[in-house]
Amino acid sequence: MSMIVNRRDLDFMFYETLDLDKLLQSERYSDYDRESLDAMMDLCQSIAEEEFLPFASKLDANEPQFVDGGVETIPELKQAINAFKDAGLCTSGYDADIGGMQLPWMVDQAMNGMFVCANNPVHTYLFLTQGVANMLNVCGSDELKDKYLGKLVEGEWFGTMCLSEPQAGSSLADIRTKAEPLADGRYKISGTKMWISGGEQDLSDNIVHMVLAKVPGGPGGVRGISLFLVPKVSVNEDGSLGEHNNVALAGLNHKMGNRGTTNTLLNFGEGGDCVGYLVGNENEGLANMFHMMNEARISVGQAAVMSALGGYLYSLDYARNRPQGRHLAEKNPDLPQVMISEHADIKRMLMTQKAFVEGAQLLMYYSAQIIDQQKVSTDSDQHRRMSLLLDLLTPICKSWPSEYCLEANKLAIQVLGGYGYTREYPVERLYRDNRLNHIHEGTWGIQGLDILGRKMQMQDGAAVAILREEIQSTIESAVGHSALAEHCTQLEASLTQMEETVHAVAACGDKSLALANATIFLDAAGHIVIAWMWLKQAVAASNGLGSGDAGDVAFYKGKLAATKFFFRYELPKSSAGLSLVAGLDSTCYDLTAEQFLGA
Amino acid sequence: MSMIVNRRDLDFMFYETLDLDKLLQSERYSDYDRESLDAMMDLCQSIAEEEFLPFASKLDANEPQFVDGGVETIPELKQAINAFKDAGLCTSGYDADIGGMQLPWMVDQAMNGMFVCANNPVHTYLFLTQGVANMLNVCGSDELKDKYLGKLVEGEWFGTMCLSEPQAGSSLADIRTKAEPLADGRYKISGTKMWISGGEQDLSDNIVHMVLAKVPGGPGGVRGISLFLVPKVSVNEDGSLGEHNNVALAGLNHKMGNRGTTNTLLNFGEGGDCVGYLVGNENEGLANMFHMMNEARISVGQAAVMSALGGYLYSLDYARNRPQGRHLAEKNPDLPQVMISEHADIKRMLMTQKAFVEGAQLLMYYSAQIIDQQKVSTDSDQHRRMSLLLDLLTPICKSWPSEYCLEANKLAIQVLGGYGYTREYPVERLYRDNRLNHIHEGTWGIQGLDILGRKMQMQDGAAVAILREEIQSTIESAVGHSALAEHCTQLEASLTQMEETVHAVAACGDKSLALANATIFLDAAGHIVIAWMWLKQAVAASNGLGSGDAGDVAFYKGKLAATKFFFRYELPKSSAGLSLVAGLDSTCYDLTAEQFLGA
Repeated sequence: MSMIVNRRDLDFMFYETLDLDKLLQSERYSDYDRESLDAMMDLCQSIAEEEFLPFASKLDANEPQFVDGGVETIPELKQAINAFKDAGLCTSGYDADIGGMQLPWMVDQAMNGMFVCANNPVHTYLFLTQGVANMLNVCGSDELKDKYLGKLVEGEWFGTMCLSEPQAGSSLADIRTKAEPLADGRYKISGTKMWISGGEQDLSDNIVHMVLAKVPGGPGGVRGISLFLVPKVSVNEDGSLGEHNNVALAGLNHKMGNRGTTNTLLNFGEGGDCVGYLVGNENEGLANMFHMMNEARISVGQAAVMSALGGYLYSLDYARNRPQGRHLAEKNPDLPQVMISEHADIKRMLMTQKAFVEGAQLLMYYSAQIIDQQKVSTDSDQHRRMSLLLDLLTPICKSWPSEYCLEANKLAIQVLGGYGYTREYPVERLYRDNRLNHIHEGTWGIQGLDILGRKMQMQDGAAVAILREEIQSTIESAVGHSALAEHCTQLEASLTQMEETVHAVAACGDKSLALANATIFLDAAGHIVIAWMWLKQAVAASNGLGSGDAGDVAFYKGKLAATKFFFRYELPKSSAGLSLVAGLDSTCYDLTAEQFLGA
Repeated sequence: MSMIVNRRDLDFMFYETLDLDKLLQSERYSDYDRESLDAMMDLCQSIAEEEFLPFASKLDANEPQFVDGGVETIPELKQAINAFKDAGLCTSGYDADIGGMQLPWMVDQAMNGMFVCANNPVHTYLFLTQGVANMLNVCGSDELKDKYLGKLVEGEWFGTMCLSEPQAGSSLADIRTKAEPLADGRYKISGTKMWISGGEQDLSDNIVHMVLAKVPGGPGGVRGISLFLVPKVSVNEDGSLGEHNNVALAGLNHKMGNRGTTNTLLNFGEGGDCVGYLVGNENEGLANMFHMMNEARISVGQAAVMSALGGYLYSLDYARNRPQGRHLAEKNPDLPQVMISEHADIKRMLMTQKAFVEGAQLLMYYSAQIIDQQKVSTDSDQHRRMSLLLDLLTPICKSWPSEYCLEANKLAIQVLGGYGYTREYPVERLYRDNRLNHIHEGTWGIQGLDILGRKMQMQDGAAVAILREEIQSTIESAVGHSALAEHCTQLEASLTQMEETVHAVAACGDKSLALANATIFLDAAGHIVIAWMWLKQAVAASNGLGSGDAGDVAFYKGKLAATKFFFRYELPKSSAGLSLVAGLDSTCYDLTAEQFLGA
C-alpha cells in the first residue's frame, strides 16, 4: 500500500462526494477529464514516492546549515525539487494566461498533497513560491510581472512572505520595517524580519521576498502597512541577475519539526542599500497580503491533514503486520500472537485517525471546490454566497486539522508503541512537523477571534445562514437512508446550539468578555462542520453500497462506520464547549497574573 | 521565579492539603520536621537549578553515542550525577536499615521531582537504579543483597529493568530469553532485550540488570517467567569487579525526546557465557517485578507532571514578560503593547496548564502518601483499604498525566508561538520528553484494561466503594464553604455515573466487547479523580482564605479559580465518554481491518 495517499478515497471524495465531473464540464477546465487527471495523479504519486519520500528522515536529521552567511542543504533536496520542476509541476497552481496548467484548485491541492505527505519541508519552498506568484499576479504592476512572474511560475526563482518581526509576531500593527521612497519611484527598505520560511537557501538562483513595511509619515497601526517586492539579487533590465540587494541572513531558527525548510531571521539593508518595489498601492499592504489568505490558510490545513495521513497509513500498515498478544478471551499462551489491528484499543486509535484525517480532508477539498466554483460561476448572488461561506469556513480549515490531525499523529505513535517514539520510524517526525500548523498563518487564538468576532457575525449572520442552508441540503440528501436519520437529527441540534451561542455572544455588550472563549467556540464549530463532512460521505457511501459494486463494500462500510464514530464519539463534545461560550463563562478571563502561582 | 518548582504550591499540598505534619509525628519519620525537610528541599532545588537545568538543552542536542561497543556521554552528565551523589541524594528513597534517608515517599517524590523537571534524562539513570535496589531488597537473597545492594544504594552502580524483547513488547508471555540452570545454582542467560533504558552508559562502574527470562521446561506464558540479576561486570567474592559478563550492546534506539538517557538493545550471552542469579523463586518473576509496579507507575506519572510543570512555569514567565498586541477594545495602535498574559486566550491556555499540572500533582502526592501511610499503619483493615485504593488509582496516576500533562506541554508551546516551536526555547523539548510516558511501564491501552477489567471489579467492587467513601469525606469537608456546593453536587453525580458504568460493564457476558472502550473509561475516571483532587485543594484554599494571611490571597484565589475551571471546562467531558462505555458501543470494535482503507 502507498504511504502517502489512498487513491480509492481520493476518487470517492472527488467523484462520489463532491461531483468533480460536473466542474470539469465548465469551459474553464475543459482541457481535463477524469482520465487525464488520473494520469496526472499517477505521475505525482510516483515522483512523490520515489523522489520525496525516501529522504524525508535524512532531511530531518540533516537540516540546512548556516555557512559563510548562506545556507547549505543536502543534495537530495535539490534533486527532489528538480524532479518536481522537470515534470512541469511548478506550474500546476496557475492559470493558463501566465503559463499555468489551470487545474481545478481541489485537484492541485490533492496533487501537491502527495508531496506534502511524502516530505513537507521540501514542498514548503514550492508552496511559498506559488503564494508569492499569485499575489504578484493579482496586485503587481505589469512591469514587476514582466520581470518576476515567469521565473516564479517556472520555479526558477523562489518566493517568501515576510510579515513578522522580533517585536511583532501576531501583531502586525507593530512592525517597524521602513520603506523610504527614492526619487525614481523605488523604495529603500530597512529592518529585520523574523520566522521567514525559505528566507535563504541554495536551491534557486534568486529569492523574491514579499515584505510588509511602513512608509514614514503614513497612518499608524495596520493602516500604514505597504507591500514590497524585494529581490535577494537585483534583476537587470534585461532580466539577468545583477548585484546582491543587501538582504542579509542574520540567523536560522532551529525548529522542532519541518526541519528541512529553513526558517530565518533576515536583515534588510544590512551592509548597503536594499531596494524594494511597491506592490499595489501604499498603505494597502495588508489587504494585498490578505488577498491570498483564504488559500494560504486552507493550504496550512491541508498540510496538517497530510502529516496525519502519513501517520495514519503508516500505523495502519504496522498494526496489520505486527503480531503482539492475544484476544482478551484467549487463555492459551501457546497459540500464536495475533496482529495488533485485532485489539479493540488499536482499532479505536486507528478509527480516530481515520475519522479525523478523512473528515478534515473532505473539508479541505470542499473549500477548495468553493474557490473553483467561484471561478466558473457567472451568477453574482451565488458568487457572494460562496465567498461568505468560504470566509466562514477558513478559520476551521486552518485550525481544526492543526488540532485534531496532530492528535491523529499522536495516536499513530501510540499504535507503534516504543517504536513510534523513535526516529527510526516516521510517525514521530510527522508529529513534530505537524505541531507548527497551529502557529503559522494566524495562531489558534487568532482564528478563534476571527470566526466568532467577525465571520459568524458579519452581514447580520449571513454566512451562518448560508452554512445552515448547505447543511440542510445535505440532510435532505440523506432522507432516503434511514440509518442516517439519527445523525441528521443530531447534526441539526448541534447546529442550532451553535447559532444560539452566536446570538448570545452578539448580544453581549462587553466585546472582550464575549470573545473570551472564542477558541473553544472555534473548536466546537469545527466539530459540527466536520460532522457535516462525514454526513456527506455517509450519503455518498450509502449510494455507493446501493449501486452494488461488491469490491467496494468494505470501503463503503468503513465510511459509514467512521461517520457513526464521529457522531457518537466526537460530536457530543461540542455541546459542553458551546455552553461555556454561550454562558459567557469568565473563569479564565477574570484571572489575574498573580493568581497563577501566588506571586 | 524558579523554572522547576513552585515552593509555595508544594507547601500548600504538603501542609495545607495532605497533612504531612501528621505523618511526621509517626515513629518511622521522627527524624524529620518541617524545618529539616525545607532545608532538604532547598538543597535539592539549588543542585537541580545549578547542576541539572543548565545543560538540559545541550544534552538533548548531544545524545549519547555508540562508540566501540560502548556509549559515550557528555561530561556535564557525569558532573550532574556526581553532584547528586556527593550530596548523598542517591540514598533518599531507601529505609535506614539499608543506608537510606527513610524519608516519607511523598517528600522523596517532590525532591526528585525537581531534578526530573530540570533534566529528566539525567535523573532517569538514578530513578531506575532506585527501582532495582528496592526490588532486590524485597525479593533478593541475603547473598545477593550483601554483594549488590550497598553499591546500588550509594549510586556507585546503576540498575536497569529488562522486560521487553523485539517480538514481545507489551506481551511478556512471549519473551524468549532463556535461563539455563548451572550446576552451582547460577543460570546461563541468553537472549535479546529491547527498549532497555540505561542499558549501557559510561556513568557507573557496573550495571545491574534485572532480567525476565524463562527456565526451559517451565510453564507456558507468564507463569513461566523468572527474575534474574545479571551484572554487566562479574563481581568477585570480595566485592571487586571481575570479568565482563557478556552483555553486549547491540544498538541504541534514537528517541524523539528524553534523549540523554540511552535506550538500548542488549544481547545477553553474545561472545561468551552470561551468568545470572535468580531473584526470588523460579516462575515468580512477574510477581516480583510487579512488586514495584505501583511505585514505578506513580513515578512515570510524576515525570509527566514534572515535564508539564517545566512548560507551565516557562510559558507563564514568558507570557508575563512578552509584549504583543493590545486589548480587544483598544483601537489606538500608538499605545504600547500589553503583555500577552492579559489576552483571554493566553489566560485560558495558562489556566488549562495550571489545572492539569497542579491537579495531577496532588494525585501523585496523595498516592505517594498512601504508600507512606501503609508503612506507618498498624491497623490491618486500614492497610487493606489503602492497598485497594492505591491499586485502583495507579492506572490513573500513570495515564492521566501522560495524556493531559502532554496536552499542557502542547499549550506551553502555543503560548510562546513560533518561539515555542524552536529548540532555542525549552518548551518543545519538554513536549518531546513527555510523549514517552504514555508508552513505557504499560501503555495507555493496557492501563485501561487494568482499571476497567480488574481494578474496578476486584473484590466485588471493594476498591470503588473505598474511593466513594474517600470522595464523600472530601465533600463533607467542603460543607462549610457554600461556594463549593455546586462542585460537590457535580462530583457526586459524575461518580455515580462512573459506578453505573462499571455495573453495566460487569453485567456484560462478552468480556472483549465489555472492555472495548476501556481506554475511554480510564480517561473519564481520571477526570473524576482529578476533579476530586481539585475539590481537596479548594477546601484547603477556602480554609486558607478564612485564616486571613493577606499575602496569600492571590494564591488561594488562583486555586479556587482553577477548581472552578476544572469543574466547568473539564469534568463535563467525562459524561459523554462514560455513556459510550456503559452503552457497550461497538463502533470501533466491529470494524474489520479491510474497512479502514477499503483494501
